[in-house]
Amino acid sequence: MSQTIYLAGPDVFRRDAIEIGKAKQTLCTEQGFIGLFPLDNTLNLDGLTAYQQGLAIYDANIELMKESDFIIANMTPFRGPGMDQGTAFEMGYLTALKKPIYAYTLNPEHYAGRISHKNGWDSNGLQVESFEMADNLMLVGAIEKSGGQLISHLGDDSNTQDHLDAFSKVLECISNTQ
Amino acid sequence: MSQTIYLAGPDVFRRDAIEIGKAKQTLCTEQGFIGLFPLDNTLNLDGLTAYQQGLAIYDANIELMKESDFIIANMTPFRGPGMDQGTAFEMGYLTALKKPIYAYTLNPEHYAGRISHKNGWDSNGLQVESFEMADNLMLVGAIEKSGGQLISHLGDDSNTQDHLDAFSKVLECISNTQ
Repeated sequence: MSQTIYLAGPDVFRRDAIEIGKAKQTLCTEQGFIGLFPLDNTLNLDGLTAYQQGLAIYDANIELMKESDFIIANMTPFRGPGMDQGTAFEMGYLTALKKPIYAYTLNPEHYAGRISHKNGWDSNGLQVESFEMADNLMLVGAIEKSGGQLISHLGDDSNTQDHLDAFSKVLECISNTQ
Repeated sequence: MSQTIYLAGPDVFRRDAIEIGKAKQTLCTEQGFIGLFPLDNTLNLDGLTAYQQGLAIYDANIELMKESDFIIANMTPFRGPGMDQGTAFEMGYLTALKKPIYAYTLNPEHYAGRISHKNGWDSNGLQVESFEMADNLMLVGAIEKSGGQLISHLGDDSNTQDHLDAFSKVLECISNTQ
């Protein structure tokens, strides 16, 4: 049976969310995997408040994650120097379930390099992590310790093809370890 | 035996990290809990590269989480409109282990209210979640579905006492449910 991959990332917030999800799924299929994308869920949200809708989507995403054998997360910085928080949560969830964590980022710089700081402290007096990692050590640690891999692929976040190129590299890397 | 609480948040990056950690632990003790703070770990990082140091801290934090009965996360926005990514990861990790997720934020505004947007789309053409939640729906969903609680307490992120006041409210709320 084909292995299933949870496709995590702020991709769901893009104008071309459905298209990029389908394109990633096609790439999965070509490599013999099944890609599960959060927007695959056809949820009936009629009559729910905004808050209840959020909870319904949460439940659906949790179910998709439970079905998955591993995750490929888009860790490209999102609204700040770090990655999307929802995706970080999902990496944590699947780490506890002992699934391998794979990821890519279109920003190959280390986290500390993205933040203006003086002797390791930012303008708000907060220390800047400098472990030569792409993001917070919990995220990069999870990838490393799970036996997964993080692909750094210089690209433009707004360019869908750059995401697909990086994603393809991750898939190749997974295929090579199977 | 006393229940243990993992004290998660970007508190570890503050200049007063050790003090705020100890103060939160004292508040835990006063309520009959044991607070575990990431900086409690006395790790020997001698001879390790920066990257290896990050991994060693990762391992230690994972061990602390495994020992914990639940988590109190500081979800106050960190370097952008959303919360600290490492803390989001930890909330996901403990959610998968079926531990209750408690949290506080010093910014009571909904996530969408913190981002400049036009008809729900930000200046980078990314959709802004508007589920009347304090942060990404995965985080708030996890709190709600785990039976935990999120305390919104208006305060100044740089003011340590504001954090402690919010934290105390969470502890009271946990004590009331025991």
